[in-house]
Amino acid sequence: MAQAHALQVLVEALRRLPGVGVKSASRMAFHLLQHDRAGARQLAQALQHACDSVHHCRLCHTFTEHEVCETCQDASRDRSKLCVVETPADQSALERTQAFRGLYFVLMGKLSPLDGIGPQDIGLDRLLDRAGDGVVQEVILATNFTAEGEATAHVLSERLKARGLKVTRLARGVPAGSELEYVDLGTIAHALHDRR
Amino acid sequence: MAQAHALQVLVEALRRLPGVGVKSASRMAFHLLQHDRAGARQLAQALQHACDSVHHCRLCHTFTEHEVCETCQDASRDRSKLCVVETPADQSALERTQAFRGLYFVLMGKLSPLDGIGPQDIGLDRLLDRAGDGVVQEVILATNFTAEGEATAHVLSERLKARGLKVTRLARGVPAGSELEYVDLGTIAHALHDRR
Ligand SMILES: [Zn+2]
Ligand SMILES: [Zn+2]
Repeated sequence: MAQAHALQVLVEALRRLPGVGVKSASRMAFHLLQHDRAGARQLAQALQHACDSVHHCRLCHTFTEHEVCETCQDASRDRSKLCVVETPADQSALERTQAFRGLYFVLMGKLSPLDGIGPQDIGLDRLLDRAGDGVVQEVILATNFTAEGEATAHVLSERLKARGLKVTRLARGVPAGSELEYVDLGTIAHALHDRR
Repeated sequence: MAQAHALQVLVEALRRLPGVGVKSASRMAFHLLQHDRAGARQLAQALQHACDSVHHCRLCHTFTEHEVCETCQDASRDRSKLCVVETPADQSALERTQAFRGLYFVLMGKLSPLDGIGPQDIGLDRLLDRAGDGVVQEVILATNFTAEGEATAHVLSERLKARGLKVTRLARGVPAGSELEYVDLGTIAHALHDRR
């Protein structure tokens, strides 16, 4: 088929998005070029700008445009409690409960030996440094209650306890097998309160 | 949540893609920034380049980087037959059959009164001009066999016939390789009616 080369390149580039196969990519390219070129140009700029300006917070490792993110900079936060989550979306879910006023450490992933993701890929050393700053009194493990999340919590717990830190885990109010991002806020709030 | 502004802008821009809600957009943004910044930059460039260089073929209205697309330029094509399709993907499907060596007209859509898409939005005047060039002898309507595709074919057929053009429609029938027992009754009825 004599399809425009720039269009083929666009379809290939869209396929790098997670969950997008060749059919969806073609549909997306068609939609953008036929009906929403302004949206396409906006997306191009947003991608470029995010790649240029978004990096990791020096303290909690989440995405930020500053050296230290706004949450870590917030002087009203209880700096003695550090909550460890897998992703910014999980942190966001915890924040929406308004049940936690401490600080966070965002792993930006989880242990997954099958995918070759080991302790260093989720910033274990950085977490140990962060939790060992002498101010943090308790590390609350809020990784997901999936097999990988539990394994991650287990490994982190061992290593943090070996440094003499108090380690707690969200209570099992959260249904097993579910991801925080999709759990209702009340359940998350209870799980925070009942942490063990 | 103190989420990086550039990240929020990116999530919003990704939501303009068809079929992408806020959860998928967040997942896409996270994936690109955490695991595939090269892919993000490539996508930005591909979008920009496609917007700058892809426009419509003067003759068949499909996407091309030239004034006239490669198919329309192909001197070996039978210029007396013009096949009307809804999208480049439909044209592509027909090309893969290798059963048609004429030329195409791509509507880049279909009639859809509920969405406010009328005859001018699918280039009716352009099609009438194109089909009335004195060389085209037969217009083959290959819009989809959906309610909207059939309605589109009906309207185009009326207008083309009013110009004295010969208009045909792809045959409706039993798909190759299928057993009658498992084919829906409407399809069998159509196949009976269109028997040759
Ligand atoms: Zn931070
Ligand atoms: Zn053309």
